[in-house]
Amino acid sequence: MKKFVYFFGHKQTEGNASEKYILGGKGANLAEMSKIGIPVPPGFTISTEVCKYFYDNNKKYPETLKKEVEANLKKLETATGKKFGDSKNPLLVSVRSGAASSMPGMMDTILNLGLNEDVVKSIASSTANPRFAWDSYRRFIQMYGNVVENIEHEKFEHLIDSIKDKKGIREDTDMGATDWEEVVRAYKKLFKIEKNREFPDDAQVQLWGAIGAVIGSWNNARAITYRRLNHIDETKVFGTAINVQSMVFGNLGADSGTGVAFTRNPATGEKKSYGEYLMNAQGEDVVAGIRTPKHLDSLREDNDKVYDQLIAIFSKLEKHYRDMQDVEFTIENGKLYILQTRSGKRTAPASIKVAIDLVSEKLITKKEALLRIEPEKLDQLLHPTLDPKAKSKYKLIATGLPASPGAGVGEVVFNAETAVEWKEAGKKVILVRAETSPEDISGMNAAQGILTARGGMTSHAAVVARGMGKCCVSGCESITVSEIEKKFRIGDLIVSEGDLITLDGSTGEVFLGEVPAVNPELSGYFGTIMEWSDKYKKLGVRTNADTPRDAQVARDFGATGIGLCRTEHMFFQADRIFAVRQMILADTAEQRKVALAKIFPMQKNDFLELFKIMKGFPVKIRLLDPPLHEFLPKEKADIEALAMEMGITVEKLQDKIDSLHEQNPMMGHRGCRLGISFPEIFEMQVRAIAEAACEVIKKNNVIASEAKQSLIPEIMIPLIGEFNEFKWLKDRLVPVIEDTIKKYGIKMTYEIGTMIEIPRAALTADAIATEADFFSFGTNDLTQMTYGFSRDDAGKFLKDYTDKKILAEDPFKTLDTVGVGRLMKMAVDLGRNTKKNLHIGICGEQGGDPATIKYCHQIGLNYVSCSPYRVPIARLAAAQAAIEAEK
Amino acid sequence: MKKFVYFFGHKQTEGNASEKYILGGKGANLAEMSKIGIPVPPGFTISTEVCKYFYDNNKKYPETLKKEVEANLKKLETATGKKFGDSKNPLLVSVRSGAASSMPGMMDTILNLGLNEDVVKSIASSTANPRFAWDSYRRFIQMYGNVVENIEHEKFEHLIDSIKDKKGIREDTDMGATDWEEVVRAYKKLFKIEKNREFPDDAQVQLWGAIGAVIGSWNNARAITYRRLNHIDETKVFGTAINVQSMVFGNLGADSGTGVAFTRNPATGEKKSYGEYLMNAQGEDVVAGIRTPKHLDSLREDNDKVYDQLIAIFSKLEKHYRDMQDVEFTIENGKLYILQTRSGKRTAPASIKVAIDLVSEKLITKKEALLRIEPEKLDQLLHPTLDPKAKSKYKLIATGLPASPGAGVGEVVFNAETAVEWKEAGKKVILVRAETSPEDISGMNAAQGILTARGGMTSHAAVVARGMGKCCVSGCESITVSEIEKKFRIGDLIVSEGDLITLDGSTGEVFLGEVPAVNPELSGYFGTIMEWSDKYKKLGVRTNADTPRDAQVARDFGATGIGLCRTEHMFFQADRIFAVRQMILADTAEQRKVALAKIFPMQKNDFLELFKIMKGFPVKIRLLDPPLHEFLPKEKADIEALAMEMGITVEKLQDKIDSLHEQNPMMGHRGCRLGISFPEIFEMQVRAIAEAACEVIKKNNVIASEAKQSLIPEIMIPLIGEFNEFKWLKDRLVPVIEDTIKKYGIKMTYEIGTMIEIPRAALTADAIATEADFFSFGTNDLTQMTYGFSRDDAGKFLKDYTDKKILAEDPFKTLDTVGVGRLMKMAVDLGRNTKKNLHIGICGEQGGDPATIKYCHQIGLNYVSCSPYRVPIARLAAAQAAIEAEK
Repeated sequence: MKKFVYFFGHKQTEGNASEKYILGGKGANLAEMSKIGIPVPPGFTISTEVCKYFYDNNKKYPETLKKEVEANLKKLETATGKKFGDSKNPLLVSVRSGAASSMPGMMDTILNLGLNEDVVKSIASSTANPRFAWDSYRRFIQMYGNVVENIEHEKFEHLIDSIKDKKGIREDTDMGATDWEEVVRAYKKLFKIEKNREFPDDAQVQLWGAIGAVIGSWNNARAITYRRLNHIDETKVFGTAINVQSMVFGNLGADSGTGVAFTRNPATGEKKSYGEYLMNAQGEDVVAGIRTPKHLDSLREDNDKVYDQLIAIFSKLEKHYRDMQDVEFTIENGKLYILQTRSGKRTAPASIKVAIDLVSEKLITKKEALLRIEPEKLDQLLHPTLDPKAKSKYKLIATGLPASPGAGVGEVVFNAETAVEWKEAGKKVILVRAETSPEDISGMNAAQGILTARGGMTSHAAVVARGMGKCCVSGCESITVSEIEKKFRIGDLIVSEGDLITLDGSTGEVFLGEVPAVNPELSGYFGTIMEWSDKYKKLGVRTNADTPRDAQVARDFGATGIGLCRTEHMFFQADRIFAVRQMILADTAEQRKVALAKIFPMQKNDFLELFKIMKGFPVKIRLLDPPLHEFLPKEKADIEALAMEMGITVEKLQDKIDSLHEQNPMMGHRGCRLGISFPEIFEMQVRAIAEAACEVIKKNNVIASEAKQSLIPEIMIPLIGEFNEFKWLKDRLVPVIEDTIKKYGIKMTYEIGTMIEIPRAALTADAIATEADFFSFGTNDLTQMTYGFSRDDAGKFLKDYTDKKILAEDPFKTLDTVGVGRLMKMAVDLGRNTKKNLHIGICGEQGGDPATIKYCHQIGLNYVSCSPYRVPIARLAAAQAAIEAEK
Repeated sequence: MKKFVYFFGHKQTEGNASEKYILGGKGANLAEMSKIGIPVPPGFTISTEVCKYFYDNNKKYPETLKKEVEANLKKLETATGKKFGDSKNPLLVSVRSGAASSMPGMMDTILNLGLNEDVVKSIASSTANPRFAWDSYRRFIQMYGNVVENIEHEKFEHLIDSIKDKKGIREDTDMGATDWEEVVRAYKKLFKIEKNREFPDDAQVQLWGAIGAVIGSWNNARAITYRRLNHIDETKVFGTAINVQSMVFGNLGADSGTGVAFTRNPATGEKKSYGEYLMNAQGEDVVAGIRTPKHLDSLREDNDKVYDQLIAIFSKLEKHYRDMQDVEFTIENGKLYILQTRSGKRTAPASIKVAIDLVSEKLITKKEALLRIEPEKLDQLLHPTLDPKAKSKYKLIATGLPASPGAGVGEVVFNAETAVEWKEAGKKVILVRAETSPEDISGMNAAQGILTARGGMTSHAAVVARGMGKCCVSGCESITVSEIEKKFRIGDLIVSEGDLITLDGSTGEVFLGEVPAVNPELSGYFGTIMEWSDKYKKLGVRTNADTPRDAQVARDFGATGIGLCRTEHMFFQADRIFAVRQMILADTAEQRKVALAKIFPMQKNDFLELFKIMKGFPVKIRLLDPPLHEFLPKEKADIEALAMEMGITVEKLQDKIDSLHEQNPMMGHRGCRLGISFPEIFEMQVRAIAEAACEVIKKNNVIASEAKQSLIPEIMIPLIGEFNEFKWLKDRLVPVIEDTIKKYGIKMTYEIGTMIEIPRAALTADAIATEADFFSFGTNDLTQMTYGFSRDDAGKFLKDYTDKKILAEDPFKTLDTVGVGRLMKMAVDLGRNTKKNLHIGICGEQGGDPATIKYCHQIGLNYVSCSPYRVPIARLAAAQAAIEAEK
């Protein structure tokens, strides 16, 4: 008989931390903590396999489940000395979800389960705390009603508000036992109206209702969105576990309380526990941000014994888990319980500092440290922050908590839908909310930053924003947000939807207008991580750069070469587009050559500048790629203007534009196909490259000690699909370079290679490698052709694909290793079969994606090339790939 | 030392027929004939390797060539008892090209080489025939001047004409010795003016000039075009050999002559030699069509001894070569010489009859017979011929020679350029010429048929037309063609450019207007070939058919199933396009279902009819493939009309059209992607298929004895690139079919499979095969994506590709086995690895191409599917593939 339920509780514990795929992250850690002697209220975990079984079997439970749950309830009654459903000595439980991948706030939780009027009365008398008893009951009805029975949260809140109004009470804390009892009556009435039956009194009915709701919450819209945004692959991590745990109460009175804490500072990484708590409260009160909690340090004053015990537990957990922990605790009548521990989410700076500190503390190795840092998150460190000197010139309108660092500028919006719409319309937005809830997640994702009036450093807004790497200012209590009127107020100042504000997530400051930003400092801890990365990585990291500015940024970020310089971007510049258009409109090769002669000195100068910046590091230049019609105007007015400028008739120009029109330009007359039709274009480009390189070499001004070599220009021919295309062009381009070398009277090594971006190039890579000096995977086009997905059009159906779970990832962001990757591996193997040491890289946009980089390492590429700001990410990802491959 | 020159001449012969790649076809056969005792004038062959060396080495000859040629000249002098360059006893030679693949008329020939004034005088006296001597000399100067020195042919002809005019002479035959001598003087003057030097007298200079010209002719434009049209792969067959042969003269007087003959009738295959000759003429006179030659039968009267000897040689050659031969002969002073033999080009009916007759004569086996027939040529037999009953109603304006059978209807054009232009503009044309020359080849290719005023059955026009399978009426002497005025005249009737005429190439008749045609009879010899083909072939042959008419034609041609029924063609029909557009313009799934309900009964009826015609043979139906915008109008007026019809505003319609617009529709929202976005469309189609199939099975009216099975509908999902796409759709479509089966209360087998037309489908075929019942290669799309060539746009650069020899073949016509084929093989292997007996076919247009069919056999497909008219071609090609694979 398959085991579906696992007990935890000191010596009887059945699971451990390694079983998170079965027990979920929360359940596994509850078991582990129980084992190592941390005070955890006992309970049991229903495994994720039940959830999987449920969805695979037409929403039915395994037959044996009921029996197992009953047996574990008995065990729990024994362990606690209480009885489930009993009114004398009642066992109350919490029912919580917990998947293998943490999905904070995404799924449902029910507390205080097991209550009914008899039990409440019994507890009121046994605790001598009727207020607590009725408050707990109303909380339970509200949670159960909302989570299990889908009655809107607002309806319950509205009832409380009207009872408060009637009684003239402002704060919840001023509500007494009879007030809460009245709320309970009102809630039950509401329940009966909504559901046409009584609120269930039977604890068993309540338990199975809650289990069903938790399992159901796995597939609610929020959870699905979260998994999509966080790339959680459901084929690997499926289902939530359900943790049924005996309740402890933080709301039993003044010597009770509840809190959440990080063992180190999750924003900075500072080695000092960091948390918040509320006395006489239940856990949800802290996280939801309704009451602003106290800082953990104050607990020393409130209860120094518990404080010391907590700090000792933090230390034990860190040593045990070898990582910074995120801990939930409850104090019940002065006794401390730990309800949860997990690896703490942290900002990028914190993840770097914690990892390096853990190495210093000898808890982990350098390699482990590198594996601890999410490469994607480095992005947070690479983008500009607010210029401290400029700040003073802008109006500081408020200061809240520095919940997630970085700078954010945008137009104010007040709900998630507007955030998403405006973002899609190309605007930058700041989402402003009184407090955020899981429903806001898509809006937070769309925003440049988040500002909330309520909630602490561990509020929903803060946790989610840090996870997303968005800047966030939370708990900014000086502002009053009116989501309905779409404005917020600070004293007399009113900020309305569409107004521009700037957030500084590192200081908590909020400015009116757009404050300028400065580039980040890349030394210190960051530098250490990069240094360690370079030590372990095997892949080279180059950059895709078309301009001297891009090249310089990439060099500063540690790129050791250019993997892709797109020459056509140079063609679009205002001072040369005219000559380019003359070239396109030429009727003969001779006319074309005249126009090309005008472009030549400009192209040459482009390359001269790039070569000087790259100081001997290799520069790979791709010859003209896009179809010629891209350089011509499309609108009538522009066409008329151009005809005038060119001194030709509108008809002639329109005829030319029409003749260049293509049904499917992505598979049309572009890349090497242009070079074959108009070899003079490629010849001009290659002459410009060769002359620039020769001049630089002749002046001997680029041999940098870093690169340890002289400039070797690499000429890359795009869109090759057939050996003869490459050979035909190479035979025409080599003499151009040789002529140039002779003219300058120097020696120069150069390479002529090809993009592998057409499936046929990969399939015939053995032939192509006989002539090509290198390969570079153009995975944008290769993905387009391999899937038959036009990037420009796939948006229309890719959403259906992710919604219907047909594709887990957008293949244009992360390499499809199964299909496109198979083709790449084939090309690598065929190419190296022909030429053993063939140098192979990738320059598609996926080249900066960590998962793609891992695959590139696996199939033996020599380097990846990515946009300048992703170079550090790639360096770390390359190191992780190498370290993981060692295992 | 590598041997470059091979002698031939009875006992000293060095080569044989098997060495045609070295000696060229002509050289190899001259050697072979010499060996078996056929009277061949001795000579030697400079091998094709010299030509290859020449082009590989910057147009230089191998160093040892000169010496070898000298040694062979000596040998030839000994064999003939004459001396090269000697004026007393001169050895004259012909220098002719001859590649491994026959390229008739495409390359150059020079006769009478070795002549100068001294030699001419000496010959004049030794033959006592000064007219012959001077005529030979002027021919030599003219040929040499044209071929070696590039002086235009017309300039020489013009000189003859002006001398004739001056002397009042009409026919060449009336020219005397002194007349020709005067022509020689005029020619030499012309030569000096054109080339600024004297015409060479030195025989050695002449010889090397001629060798150079022949080698150069390999790469003239005509030869390149010929090789392209005839799919001659230069990587396999490169270069021409040069045959230097002692001259024999057909123009020595009345007992000399020259002719060409086929050992059987090349138009019908009748077992009776068939040829033409001229007495007192050189070979070029017969082929060029300037004098209309006599029928071979007349030779019996002219010289019965030579006639009998010739017939005996024909018989010997046929038995030796085991095939019908095309022979050139010359009679010199009553002595017969054979100058060439080769396998004779023939019409499709002749190739079938000859092959079957050779089997009856026990010269070849049935398998050899099948290999002798070019599948492509069967096309000639499958298309309609003129309706004999209708002919009488049209005006018969002329009758010429039935040079190449079949019917041709088109507008009259008078030059190749116009033929090509009008063809490209979508017109059907008949090319009318006084006589054709190799320059006309592209025009002949573009025309429906060719009509010439001059030239016999073996004239250029006739030979080339038969090779192309075009109908041709040649030697239609009653017409007078004015190519300049663009009209031809028959008595008083004038036919101008653009007038419509009809040719009957089987009778030589020319009609004014468009005569209706009738379908061909497919029994007799043709039926025998099909029967033998089916006996040996392993591949099934299905058809691509969307309409009952297509399906019926294909069944009549022997297709054993439908491999591709494109359902969208049914959507375009006038009576349903309105509902289709309503469906597309629907805003909700509900509205869409309403429109689909209107289409449903029509679709069901389509399938009912197809199933009835196919009588139990399998029918593979592809679900909707094209993007939806293809069903909407593009022009403003049409959009306005449609908006009115639909009862919506033009703006709304235009918005919808705009929203459906795609940058690259070929890679856009189409195929299974539509099915995933709008599953109700596919569900409607599948329900229509299932209901139609159930009804047909229930009525038990389609179990034909031929098919030996009950109907099994095969549902094919297009554009699958990922397993999840297929699974998602299959999970939705299976219940539709199962419901239908239940509703009809019958048993029915059905299959759901996929097109393999996206590279990723091939790459992940192992996964897809776990769910797919079959694969069908859609090689049109697969070729597009694998090459990244948009079929709609590739025309712009594919011409550059073939001109520059980058691609030998258009990959959309013949499968690219190297790239696309590698992907197909991978898909077959991966798919069968998952499912051992996975049924796999091809339904792209290449499925009817013989080379593609051979490859499909090699990689183990189960069947090919092609357009109805290609079914017999595919049956034969499939048999050939199987027979060749046995070897």
